[in-house]
Amino acid sequence: MVQHHTHSLDTVFHALADPTRRAMLRRLADGESGIGDLAAPFDMSFAGASKHVRILERAGLVRREVRGRTHVCTLEAAPLAEADQWLNFYQRFWTERLDALEAILKAEDAAKAKGEPKA
Amino acid sequence: MVQHHTHSLDTVFHALADPTRRAMLRRLADGESGIGDLAAPFDMSFAGASKHVRILERAGLVRREVRGRTHVCTLEAAPLAEADQWLNFYQRFWTERLDALEAILKAEDAAKAKGEPKA
Repeated sequence: MVQHHTHSLDTVFHALADPTRRAMLRRLADGESGIGDLAAPFDMSFAGASKHVRILERAGLVRREVRGRTHVCTLEAAPLAEADQWLNFYQRFWTERLDALEAILKAEDAAKAKGEPKA
Repeated sequence: MVQHHTHSLDTVFHALADPTRRAMLRRLADGESGIGDLAAPFDMSFAGASKHVRILERAGLVRREVRGRTHVCTLEAAPLAEADQWLNFYQRFWTERLDALEAILKAEDAAKAKGEPKA
């Protein structure tokens, strides 16, 4: 049985606002995993891990499949693309800052090369 | 007076998990703004808007400057670059999916061009 949930930027960003859930996604990037294996690095109960997985599922970031007694989780990256797209609009702001910093450093290097005293 | 706050991915993603706060950032991308102007599109009280701005400040996404009786807010995009960097690791997953989809569409086009029946 595969469960699907609707997702939106609200649920995606909320899911990403927790270090355990981000670590779970990183683990799932290496391949599918059972809930027990996802819980292990955090010394966390099955119930605790399952709660985090449920939040990831609701955000559409994880697909949980019940195989016999095991809950197997798989990464679903598509909603991350939406989050990335939202962030892309703001890229010019941090790029502008980096360009300005680079210009200052280059001007300093040029001044040094000319042997001028540094302000 | 300029206030600075520490920020991390937790507080940044939490700040972005709300449509009002995302809309406020979008507004600030067009230039600095008073709290009242930020509140206006949402039919929101000054106190309500101020609470959202406080969460954005804690995430390091907004700088609030008190000028006389006005609180002027400015966008600080640097923490968004960190969020973007975190998401970039997962880009290969959604890119792979798009590549696979493109390959299927191309194969279908090629089959059509040859006049073969579509499965």
